[in-house]
Amino acid sequence: MDPIITAFASAPDRGRGLARDFRVRWALEELGQAYQVRLLSFAALKEPGHRELQPFGQIPTLEVDDVAVFETGAIILHLAQRHPGLLPVGTAARARALSWMFAAVSTIEPPIVERSMAAMLERDKPWFAERMPMLDERIHRRLDELAAHLGGSEWLDGAFSAGDLMVVDVMRRLSGSGLLEAHPSVAAYIARAEARPAFQRAFEAQRAVFEARGA
Amino acid sequence: MDPIITAFASAPDRGRGLARDFRVRWALEELGQAYQVRLLSFAALKEPGHRELQPFGQIPTLEVDDVAVFETGAIILHLAQRHPGLLPVGTAARARALSWMFAAVSTIEPPIVERSMAAMLERDKPWFAERMPMLDERIHRRLDELAAHLGGSEWLDGAFSAGDLMVVDVMRRLSGSGLLEAHPSVAAYIARAEARPAFQRAFEAQRAVFEARGA
Repeated sequence: MDPIITAFASAPDRGRGLARDFRVRWALEELGQAYQVRLLSFAALKEPGHRELQPFGQIPTLEVDDVAVFETGAIILHLAQRHPGLLPVGTAARARALSWMFAAVSTIEPPIVERSMAAMLERDKPWFAERMPMLDERIHRRLDELAAHLGGSEWLDGAFSAGDLMVVDVMRRLSGSGLLEAHPSVAAYIARAEARPAFQRAFEAQRAVFEARGA
Repeated sequence: MDPIITAFASAPDRGRGLARDFRVRWALEELGQAYQVRLLSFAALKEPGHRELQPFGQIPTLEVDDVAVFETGAIILHLAQRHPGLLPVGTAARARALSWMFAAVSTIEPPIVERSMAAMLERDKPWFAERMPMLDERIHRRLDELAAHLGGSEWLDGAFSAGDLMVVDVMRRLSGSGLLEAHPSVAAYIARAEARPAFQRAFEAQRAVFEARGA
């Protein structure tokens, strides 16, 4: 049986691959694993059936054999431990890839999500103009630190890994924000990752869901 | 050689164990592993030596044999994969523990940190009174979802695991906020975890750092 992931039936990003199923699709493509997708309406996310798989009513989830996993980091790690291609073999290098996977969701993503939410929910608030530069500053600091680590390297630590995949994917939400332009080496790093054939296949697959809706 | 972790020489929490080294100390105690601590000043965090271990200039880090790890989730997972006591043996149960470890830092912690930062940095801003209830509401939703998952269970999924350790630790920052009082089953779950001997040993160890400063 192919693994089954869940995704939004109707993603709010108009086919730009910004929902969190995207990074799991990308990982499955990097690992050469076929998969099936169960599309869920926003109402279905909150129903007990899905809550049993995902206590917070989010996507994506992964079901494979008798295993059910939630949270993109856990899903990608579970897959990468079972199929070669996204984790180095040595203990020390694997520990560093793991560090980057957690850094993606724990250190880099939160200020980016906070900024997206403010842009969406607080745009009409009187404080928006004063608060936004504070949020931008926190993101710039992270991007500076990432650029310093990357230096002239192609990837974060040797070969492309699940750490790169997750760090790049959390930064993709900055596209269009104008923030990446101040960090050309980070922008080039994201572009290198997006040029990978597995990224392209995952992107087309999620885009087909949007296009099938005839929107 | 014992593993070496890093921690703040002068934590801003006055010995309450809220800095992120605490959850690694707790994990090491649960696993019965002795460890050493290298205390760092705030200035030392930003120096190239520490940045090589931790690109974002944070604590904690872990060095053991030739392995260097950063991010609490990665550190705890690395240790729990090598010593028994914090991860179930079966594939399906282990995948669920992994899901909770990522949920802790990716889904539960960000709104809690955002609220702490607002309470610290935005208290004098004109928008504080209107914005705080929005932040509280996001945290209440997560706590409701957690309570629904827990039901009458002692732990999240069978025996106490690294998932429980991380979920509990990210919620400890809510102590004193008044938010936990609306979720008695979650508060009881945190209290059960804090009563564990390993938690107590870790708490005393970090408190000794504060007390040694003569503050």
